[in-house]
Amino acid sequence: MAGNTFGKAFCVTTWGESHGPALGAVIDGCPPRLRLIEETIQKALDKRRPGKGGPVETSRKEPDKVQILSGTFEGLTTGTPISLLIWNKDARSKSYEHLREVFRPGHGDYTYLKRYGIRDHRGGGRSSGRETAARVAAGAVAQLVLDLLGIKVLAYTVSLAGIDAKERDLDQIERNRLFCPDMDAAEKMEEAALKYRTKGDSVGGIVEVQATRVPAGLGEPVFDKLDAEIAKAFMSVGAVKGVEIGSGIKAAYMTGSQNNDPISPEGFLSNNAGGILAGISNSEPIVARAAIKPIPSISMEQDTINTRGEACKIKVGGRHDASAIPRIVPVLKAMLQLVLADHLLRRFQIEITDYHTTIRDRVNGKLI
Amino acid sequence: MAGNTFGKAFCVTTWGESHGPALGAVIDGCPPRLRLIEETIQKALDKRRPGKGGPVETSRKEPDKVQILSGTFEGLTTGTPISLLIWNKDARSKSYEHLREVFRPGHGDYTYLKRYGIRDHRGGGRSSGRETAARVAAGAVAQLVLDLLGIKVLAYTVSLAGIDAKERDLDQIERNRLFCPDMDAAEKMEEAALKYRTKGDSVGGIVEVQATRVPAGLGEPVFDKLDAEIAKAFMSVGAVKGVEIGSGIKAAYMTGSQNNDPISPEGFLSNNAGGILAGISNSEPIVARAAIKPIPSISMEQDTINTRGEACKIKVGGRHDASAIPRIVPVLKAMLQLVLADHLLRRFQIEITDYHTTIRDRVNGKLI
Amino acid sequence: MAGNTFGKAFCVTTWGESHGPALGAVIDGCPPRLRLIEETIQKALDKRRPGKGGPVETSRKEPDKVQILSGTFEGLTTGTPISLLIWNKDARSKSYEHLREVFRPGHGDYTYLKRYGIRDHRGGGRSSGRETAARVAAGAVAQLVLDLLGIKVLAYTVSLAGIDAKERDLDQIERNRLFCPDMDAAEKMEEAALKYRTKGDSVGGIVEVQATRVPAGLGEPVFDKLDAEIAKAFMSVGAVKGVEIGSGIKAAYMTGSQNNDPISPEGFLSNNAGGILAGISNSEPIVARAAIKPIPSISMEQDTINTRGEACKIKVGGRHDASAIPRIVPVLKAMLQLVLADHLLRRFQIEITDYHTTIRDRVNGKLI
Amino acid sequence: MAGNTFGKAFCVTTWGESHGPALGAVIDGCPPRLRLIEETIQKALDKRRPGKGGPVETSRKEPDKVQILSGTFEGLTTGTPISLLIWNKDARSKSYEHLREVFRPGHGDYTYLKRYGIRDHRGGGRSSGRETAARVAAGAVAQLVLDLLGIKVLAYTVSLAGIDAKERDLDQIERNRLFCPDMDAAEKMEEAALKYRTKGDSVGGIVEVQATRVPAGLGEPVFDKLDAEIAKAFMSVGAVKGVEIGSGIKAAYMTGSQNNDPISPEGFLSNNAGGILAGISNSEPIVARAAIKPIPSISMEQDTINTRGEACKIKVGGRHDASAIPRIVPVLKAMLQLVLADHLLRRFQIEITDYHTTIRDRVNGKLI
Repeated sequence: MAGNTFGKAFCVTTWGESHGPALGAVIDGCPPRLRLIEETIQKALDKRRPGKGGPVETSRKEPDKVQILSGTFEGLTTGTPISLLIWNKDARSKSYEHLREVFRPGHGDYTYLKRYGIRDHRGGGRSSGRETAARVAAGAVAQLVLDLLGIKVLAYTVSLAGIDAKERDLDQIERNRLFCPDMDAAEKMEEAALKYRTKGDSVGGIVEVQATRVPAGLGEPVFDKLDAEIAKAFMSVGAVKGVEIGSGIKAAYMTGSQNNDPISPEGFLSNNAGGILAGISNSEPIVARAAIKPIPSISMEQDTINTRGEACKIKVGGRHDASAIPRIVPVLKAMLQLVLADHLLRRFQIEITDYHTTIRDRVNGKLI
Repeated sequence: MAGNTFGKAFCVTTWGESHGPALGAVIDGCPPRLRLIEETIQKALDKRRPGKGGPVETSRKEPDKVQILSGTFEGLTTGTPISLLIWNKDARSKSYEHLREVFRPGHGDYTYLKRYGIRDHRGGGRSSGRETAARVAAGAVAQLVLDLLGIKVLAYTVSLAGIDAKERDLDQIERNRLFCPDMDAAEKMEEAALKYRTKGDSVGGIVEVQATRVPAGLGEPVFDKLDAEIAKAFMSVGAVKGVEIGSGIKAAYMTGSQNNDPISPEGFLSNNAGGILAGISNSEPIVARAAIKPIPSISMEQDTINTRGEACKIKVGGRHDASAIPRIVPVLKAMLQLVLADHLLRRFQIEITDYHTTIRDRVNGKLI
Repeated sequence: MAGNTFGKAFCVTTWGESHGPALGAVIDGCPPRLRLIEETIQKALDKRRPGKGGPVETSRKEPDKVQILSGTFEGLTTGTPISLLIWNKDARSKSYEHLREVFRPGHGDYTYLKRYGIRDHRGGGRSSGRETAARVAAGAVAQLVLDLLGIKVLAYTVSLAGIDAKERDLDQIERNRLFCPDMDAAEKMEEAALKYRTKGDSVGGIVEVQATRVPAGLGEPVFDKLDAEIAKAFMSVGAVKGVEIGSGIKAAYMTGSQNNDPISPEGFLSNNAGGILAGISNSEPIVARAAIKPIPSISMEQDTINTRGEACKIKVGGRHDASAIPRIVPVLKAMLQLVLADHLLRRFQIEITDYHTTIRDRVNGKLI
Repeated sequence: MAGNTFGKAFCVTTWGESHGPALGAVIDGCPPRLRLIEETIQKALDKRRPGKGGPVETSRKEPDKVQILSGTFEGLTTGTPISLLIWNKDARSKSYEHLREVFRPGHGDYTYLKRYGIRDHRGGGRSSGRETAARVAAGAVAQLVLDLLGIKVLAYTVSLAGIDAKERDLDQIERNRLFCPDMDAAEKMEEAALKYRTKGDSVGGIVEVQATRVPAGLGEPVFDKLDAEIAKAFMSVGAVKGVEIGSGIKAAYMTGSQNNDPISPEGFLSNNAGGILAGISNSEPIVARAAIKPIPSISMEQDTINTRGEACKIKVGGRHDASAIPRIVPVLKAMLQLVLADHLLRRFQIEITDYHTTIRDRVNGKLI
């Protein structure tokens, strides 16, 4: 009933609080005999790591070094649970004492207390963005499954602080701190973000995630449709308030003749579907977007109440980020990796009907 | 691994194809001693039933009479699985033979074949909108759980054929065929839809769903957040391409000071959060929207291929609807009912820590 | 949280009460393109059907005709949920009114009331053995999956009324009403059972189930071990009080050198393991046994209480069976079929790492 | 699909190999506001810890110190995942190199290789008994839930090396190394075990587990019956080959009038049911037994094959235990704790129908 596990075949359970001793993930269901070493995961984590600097993001520094505690043997996965551990380092020194008895607007402070009757007020506890480090680590393992088919997943910022990217030059993504596929837009985004941050405010944006070389036939009707699972995966990331697939919200304003993707012997002639029809992948690139709300921690004064129900004012001080997007981009990428790895494994059990001669051979064969 | 079950505590499994003998749902986990008779479910089904007429919707007529086959005794639920059955009536006469070897653009024809290697081409088989009748029936049972707390769920059309509703007069919803809370807009929507339908085309739109009197504290961090589950629930409905919670996509273009909801001793002072913070309900109304793509069955000529991979043209003839929205409105309502009932039951197991004296009393007490 | 679904990949949900209008099962996760018609299921159901006569079993007559309501197309499974329906026929005429306010010893009357606060007293409601008809129907579908590998499952009576079968001549199983592999023992069992039934009493027994040609490598450590799942599957059948795998309880009285199965290049040299090591099949026949308690409905007078907590006497009259075994044999067979089909599908998803070149070929290939 | 998680409401995922760096468990679904410190768990672990000495058990020494990495705040559970970590200490020095290419009879060596195509041969890897340390740690947390109702769980040895305990003096359990409730029998068991160990052989036995003060009404028909879940829980422990509830296998040789438990206004007059009727607890003590096979690691010479399929001989040398029972007793206790905590939480969600006025009050109430 608790909700800290994601996936049915490639199952990831995350644990850990912002200011506890550590955080981590357990992956159950990873296929055996995939090459996995800590460096593979570390590379993905380094992209998410807070503290890259610039006007958008300035906060807490964490080395986020991952350890693999189980599930591999001589550099290969064994098919048993993979336990990943990341120690919290920068957490202990900070004082959150003043937040013990007040609810920050836009945060989970109030709802966690109503949900559990107890609340770890230090840095948001479990509702902190730090939990997503475990998701990124797990996503890097999921990618090993996707690599078997050459599936590639990319995430990038297409809007920030009111500035929309005009182009999708995916080669630019790694060349700016915002993971934006439009260098001009990236520059304007930083400027705009700086302006708001100077005022003590924060800004929202939109992240797009794309997966290419996904085979047709992934996804489970009717409730576990591939797009339904992506929607859940994205919306489960803290600041996300909207999710779109393919033409997305715009589809609501199109006609059938505009939105339908005609088919040719060479493939689909457009991709309004975002790679998914009736909940199942159609071999076109999967394209999904998430709308990210501005970070609720702002240093402007806001109305709120304390735990005794009394009105009060709050300024959430300190060096806060202008936007969570630079850290959310790798997280959304990880979530799509997790969804795809899960559905890849859910789908290909059924191949049993195709290759049973092989299995039959083994059954008839000798013991080794 | 198959995906025809929704919910963890209030679990609904649907089954049935568009042109099979029947369709239905099994509900496992409904609390006992709730009053349930067929009429309760029938009322909800009647709202979804195709064939209400008007320019938007003209198609197949089905009585959709529901039978309760198990799980009740003398008019009360017993806590055992509730099996609901709806016979297909209008299905048999139609001929879909010409669609056996061709893939309709925008439909699941191609992807189902890639997924399963076999396809029931008659009316879309399992991917047909008819499957949603079972969801609406199950939603009516879920409402019995919500009734315990007085939770009310409403769904309504806020955009159709490019016309946006200007007001949210919820009293109007039941007074027009489009479930639109703005009578003027409803009229314009019908006109616009008629115009497109005459051309053989179809139109998209947006549906909003609202739940009031939801207690604070529902939702399971981190993956099964209440908004994540709503996103999945909505996106699992055939034509949905986008889902928003509260300020939704707009949040991407707002600042923290605009989007944060200040708190007062009387409650939250705005509801950009859409009733959910950090994945947990905050006692404000839950507000979610789904963007619906235009019905892909249009009578305009489209490029496609047949099952031998050859290029061909298709016109999907017959009296098709201009929009699925009049039938999707009750379905989205049902999906929110299912999510809330599930999370209500997931949440209140934990009350054991609150009332264990009562349980202890029973344990100490006599056998009866 | 409710428990009416079995299996994770091959998922069966059963529904229905003894005296409701019908009972049935929904199977989600059956692979597509398997040949399935009603006759296949009916044959299995006919073996379980009550009313075969003889001294052991004399009760209620039900035709138990199964209907397939979804999940097949032109005689093949489609990969979508298979809904199976069996109408109750002989149920309505009986009067159970005298049991409305009294708890039968050995039955679920008291516990169901404590569990749900409401009870369908007619024939045990959901706790009736009739529910197992749905399991047998589902087991026949599971066998289609097992047929892909030539796996064969047999169930037979090895003890009844204190008489143990001395031999395992599996050809005899179908030649006597008790499914006993020892014709002499079968005769003595009927005699002994008759003696007890004449006194108004009932008898217990032991059923053995065997699966041959199961490939090595099925089962999921550590909790979903193949033997753990069999133990659950068997113990979930009403009257079962004990489950053994291979040498079973006897293993507790053996030494390591006696109980270990030596290995040779041709295979294992004994099968004390019952075909399962460390929770995973080892290619030897899987052998499991269930101990069945005597039917609690006896016409001898027993002490009990009524729903007001008052002491009273009860004789459960009518033509009751001496033993449930003739009906439980097919049910236990079905449960092993379900476990094996589930684990076969759970296992072979992982083959993706073996045949990804094939998948890769498809991805690179043309659309059809 | 992978099987390393147990429970639906109180969910435990274990991870770790015998000779990896660490092992642990993640508990998801533990209610908030329970007092939990490391000492509570350590006490339970200390009982399971290998290396207590005596003729039965002489092997590997591990401090098994547990760390709580998440899920508590100021000594109370928060409702978020509880991550437990135990470092392996004594593991590294041992050499298992000679077992890399040979399959030990009675072990999972062969089946793990067939299952995964890769095998951590060091000490059995994931199939090692060491994994159960994580179960015992989780069981100690589950007990916190049981404590709310005063439920007490005891496990003890009732047979070892062919010697059966004659009495059930539960006060003796903690007074001997075998957790035997019969001091005389315990002495004979040690003698018998010593005799076999001297020969290089090992012995089996039977463990009984009992839970008292369990309220009536726990358990989920039809598949997740309380006894079915106990059967799975017990059989999932490595060496278990048989599970019995109440009268168990003996029920197969009893008549209905002997086996039925008569009911009186003061309670049941006997407990052949072992506290469970129709899968639901009846308020009598829950009594279950597990038959444990002899440890397969024996120093007597055995026939086996190597990974090239060639016949060879093996002696599993070193100071091996005569029986796993002293370590399995706490593990089986933990498994019953886990089952009961899970079903307690699964059951009491449904109380919502009983106390909705309270919830309604909160809904109507002010924000705090």
